[in-house]
This record gives sequence, structure tokens and C-alpha cells, in this order.
Amino acid sequence: MKTVGYAAKSEGAQLGEYTFERRDLRDNDVEIEILYCGVCHSDIHTVRNDWGGSKYPVIPGHEIIGKVVSVGENVSKFKEGQLVGVGCMVDSCQQCESCKEGLEQYCENGMVGTYNGKDEHLGGHTFGGYSETVVVREKFVLKVPENIDAKGAAPLLCAGITTWSPLRHWKVKKGDKVGVIGLGGLGHMGVKFAAALGAKVVMITTSPGKSEDAKKLGADEVLISKDEEQMKKHTGSFDFLLNTVPVKHDLNPYIGLLKRDATMVLVGAIEPLEEMHGGLLITKRRNVAGSVIGGIPETQEMLDFCGEHNIVSDIEMIDMQNINEAFDRVTKSDVKYRFVIDMKSLKN
Amino acid sequence: MKTVGYAAKSEGAQLGEYTFERRDLRDNDVEIEILYCGVCHSDIHTVRNDWGGSKYPVIPGHEIIGKVVSVGENVSKFKEGQLVGVGCMVDSCQQCESCKEGLEQYCENGMVGTYNGKDEHLGGHTFGGYSETVVVREKFVLKVPENIDAKGAAPLLCAGITTWSPLRHWKVKKGDKVGVIGLGGLGHMGVKFAAALGAKVVMITTSPGKSEDAKKLGADEVLISKDEEQMKKHTGSFDFLLNTVPVKHDLNPYIGLLKRDATMVLVGAIEPLEEMHGGLLITKRRNVAGSVIGGIPETQEMLDFCGEHNIVSDIEMIDMQNINEAFDRVTKSDVKYRFVIDMKSLKN
Repeated sequence: MKTVGYAAKSEGAQLGEYTFERRDLRDNDVEIEILYCGVCHSDIHTVRNDWGGSKYPVIPGHEIIGKVVSVGENVSKFKEGQLVGVGCMVDSCQQCESCKEGLEQYCENGMVGTYNGKDEHLGGHTFGGYSETVVVREKFVLKVPENIDAKGAAPLLCAGITTWSPLRHWKVKKGDKVGVIGLGGLGHMGVKFAAALGAKVVMITTSPGKSEDAKKLGADEVLISKDEEQMKKHTGSFDFLLNTVPVKHDLNPYIGLLKRDATMVLVGAIEPLEEMHGGLLITKRRNVAGSVIGGIPETQEMLDFCGEHNIVSDIEMIDMQNINEAFDRVTKSDVKYRFVIDMKSLKN
Repeated sequence: MKTVGYAAKSEGAQLGEYTFERRDLRDNDVEIEILYCGVCHSDIHTVRNDWGGSKYPVIPGHEIIGKVVSVGENVSKFKEGQLVGVGCMVDSCQQCESCKEGLEQYCENGMVGTYNGKDEHLGGHTFGGYSETVVVREKFVLKVPENIDAKGAAPLLCAGITTWSPLRHWKVKKGDKVGVIGLGGLGHMGVKFAAALGAKVVMITTSPGKSEDAKKLGADEVLISKDEEQMKKHTGSFDFLLNTVPVKHDLNPYIGLLKRDATMVLVGAIEPLEEMHGGLLITKRRNVAGSVIGGIPETQEMLDFCGEHNIVSDIEMIDMQNINEAFDRVTKSDVKYRFVIDMKSLKN
């Protein structure tokens, strides 16, 4: 079926309207009319080919909220009119150990990204949510609670699950002292989730200007990482650190904040980091780990939790036509905390 | 009591004979005649003040095997003539959470090192095992199985427990694929223990010349880390990596060897490491951790295990008078795999 979206046609190009082919519905597919799509920093990295390997045209978007338009013959979980979400993956092998455990994001044969993934059906590569419609295998479609704001729910599909998954995997619980490093799209969700899980949340940031906002989001305390005195006071006191910093940085001051046997998880910096001091890990049996998005079962768990606790992302709505300006603002961290595209604007 | 040992009197000085004061026996102390003492790389670092903060004279030695000479009034676990060991610690606060869990090496108030620790009794600092006798609080004295070679048992007290503790903490079990990185004093014990625990052991080394030795020690396979083809074959396949490399190095090729959710533990490099790539951790939820020696209960557990499995260190015996030459050889990794001082030589 012909679908209209917004694409970057080559490296460095601005995004503009683009008509392309979506596959026709298969037996286990769900056709979704896209209502809202969040703007993730990964969208920008892919459009700009920052990580290499981008395939053009790039139609980004993996924080998709929409309504079911039609379903394939064998689809049982969804019906027309239902509010649903699609995140960073639209398929995986379903055969490997990771898939069997519901950790499709670690599929040993490689999960299929919502955009720039390998399109097994039409050939070429997949196109994301900056578009009118999307056709997705039932297994990779999420139910979105009807009681939460659908616009604010869009970023849950990437920023949300990226922070939820490690908080759950490392078993953050009531009373734990949890530090969230960096207050952006990921960090603001990390604060909300950690607080809702009952942790004592400390926002760790280089910017004193973010203190008030961090507290509004649920942080009990704000720690300015450039203030050596403050950092010293918190040495060896954290049960868990969620590090959302998206660029190369020095891990050592943060590692020093961990208790014995505690873990800092990187969810942002998919790149080389500055020199890490082995002694900081060795002297307290500390751990540094990484985590990427989350599996389908835990994404559904997160959405259900958001329904129960009325959690959504803090967003700024934009029209599709303003996407290039939005990209520039994301690059300057000038958004609180996520842009969401109102897909109706595509019809303007 | 007057005791004779070997000390470095200042930074850069050669070790030579030195007479000093040991404390008199307290109610809960054990007096030990030292039979053998292993030569650990830390001894050299401390003598040479490589880590800063060394206090002179330094009398090194924390791989001590000896016979009980006398015991304090309240000592119940030990009696005259018994074979015992002393490792890297001679005291800790016994009050903090780590001490209560039997993890005295992570004592929140700082454990007392066997040498260069704070001497609470005579003032100044503690003196180690390159000497005739040592007086140690009962709690920090270990029973050594009588069936194993007492000379080869000395290095168990540091090289042994340093590798045993992480293998146990990260629950290495039968059938796990375990990589031991680096074949020196620590690495050779790591191979022996991992093999005895039933793991499939791969020695990972830069030196093809070490293959035969590694297999003799119990490795099932040898992986030459400079061979990119070989490394590629093992990508994502290890359940656990024990990294014994004692100097700054690039962690990335090793991190890539880990399975999803698997851990590499550093036990050697108490210093800054080269740039680590965040993406390697993130894409498979891998962990990098550190670990230092082990607690008293797990040290006893290890010694008992060595008794059951007849495990000791591979050693080369030296006289006390040859210690300076031995230091130079350790620095050049010219020892298989640990020097042990025969303390009788002190009386020559």
C-alpha cells in the first residue's frame, strides 16, 4: 500500500515528504494508523549517519502510537480501533535463547529495527513512524492503556523502556538509593520510574539549572557532578546508577559513587568512553554494565505500570513539517523532554 | 618480641636483613613461626612505592605458611604445632556490613593489611611475612590442610583467593565456558580452580609459547588474543572472564568475547585502563567488574577445596637472600608461577 512519510534521502539532507510502499497485511500482521511519533536522538544519528551504515532514504521514528485499522486473519490480540504502540523493533528470529526469554532486543540473529532494519518482505530496509501508517507483526505490537495521555505515551516506547528495563533487571526496589545521571529524554523517564518504584532518587547532573525540574519529576535530591565536595559526600552510597549520558565522558567520578557490589548501567553512550580506573571497580567489587531498550514482554509490563501509575513522558508537540528544526533543537538539548509529532499534520 | 626479617628501608632500596619488634601475644592472638612466604607482585609495588603511600621500612609478604608456636588465652581454633596460613589481611573492624558478611577485604572502615597497614598495637605500620615469626588475631588465621604441599600452599593466600573469590561470587559452575586472561601467578591459579569447578577453561594469552603450559595446568583450549581470526570465532561465547592482566590494557577485545549478561572481572589492573567502548556493553547487557582478594570464610573454603582436590600453586623455591633477584625476575614475568621463600634460609 502507498504510504506518505517524511524521509531524509541522503546523508546530510533535510527530511521532506516521501511516498513509499508498505507491505500488505499478512495473516499475523496489524495495520496501524499512526497518531503520534516521538523524536528520539537515534533518529537524528541515523539520518546523519553518525554511527555509519545508514541506508537511504531514512524514514525515522520508533516511538509510535496509533490506532489499529485492520488485522490479519490470525491476529487474536488486537482489533480495529484499539490504541497500540510500536517501539524500536518490528521483528526478531523468535528461535534463539534471547527471543525465547522475551529479550528480543538481544536476538542472536539480530532483531529487525523499526527503521533501517532489513525488510524481509519487500526487500530493502524498513521505514519508521514518521509516516501515516505502519504494518507490524502482531507479536511486536503493544497494548497502550486507554487512561494515559496517548501523546505522552509515545516516548515510552523507546525512552521509557530503555530506562525501565535496567531498573527492573537490576531489581531496583523500595528504599534503594538510585542515581540517574543526565536529565534528558532518557533521564527524565528514569527519574519518574525509579521514584514510582519507591527508590530514593538522586538526579546527578552537571547543570545546577536543572534542579527544580528534576525535583518536579520526582527526584528527592539533586547532585551537581561538578561539585567535588558534594560528590565526595555521596561516595560509596548508591545502590544503582542509571547513566543516560549520550556522549563520551569520564565514568570514574560516577563509579566512585557506587556501594560495594553495586552497578552502574550505561544506556546512552554507544561509543568509546574515557579511561576507566580499574582500582575503582576492584576495591569495592563494583560493576559497570550496559543495557539496550527492552524486550516485548517487559515493554508491555512497563506500559501497564504506566497505566496504573499514570506515567507518561513530558513532551512538546510539533507538526511533521517542523521536524528539521526539532532535530536541531534536540541536538542542543533544547527540549523538555521529548518532541512528539502530531501525525495529523502530515495531511495539512 | 624481637624478630628478624628482610626489609626495604627506603624507596628504591634493596631488601636486606632487619630486626624489628613484633607485638606480644594478646588473648586472641596466634604466634606463628613462618615456614614459607610467597612473593606477590604487590610486594614489589609496595617496596618500589608504585602505588604511592608506602611506609618504610617495608617488610613485604602476605602469602604466609607457618606452624603455630603459641596461642593466646582465648584462642580456641588453633593449637601449637598446627599448620596455618595468613593472607593479605590481619584485622578489620568486624562491625560494618561487609565484615558481618565475611567480606573483610571490603571493610567499610578499611581492613588492616598484613604489611604497610596501620599497626594499632605498637603504632606505625604492620610488617609482613618476609620474617621469622608473625603474631596475628585468631580470626585472620587460616587452617591449612595437612595433605597438601605446604610450600605450594603459600601462594593460595593471595594469588589463590584472588581468583577463587570471583569464580565463586559469579557462580562459575560445571559446563560454563570460562576464559582466564593472562598466564602468571594469578592466571595459573584461575585455570586450576576453574577446571576443578568443572568449567570448560580457555586460557587467553598474547603468547603462543604459553599454550603447552596452560594445557598442563588444566586449560581445555588456548586462545591467542592477538589472532583476530581466533578471537572472532569466540565472539559472544564466554559465560565468564577472569582478567588477571596487571597493567593498563585494552578491554574491548575481551568484552566482545562475553555472552549476553556475562561478566568480565578485573583482578589485576589497579590502574587506569584504555578507552572502553560503551556499545560493547550496551548491545549485549555485558558487565565489567572488579574484585579484590577474598574474605576470611571464603579463604578457608578455598583452602579446604584445595585439600579435597589436591591443588597448590606451581612454585620455584628461593632463599631469603635471593629476594632482590627474584623481584627483578617477577617484574620480567620470569617465574613459573610464583616464588616462595624458604624461611629457614633466614637463619643461614
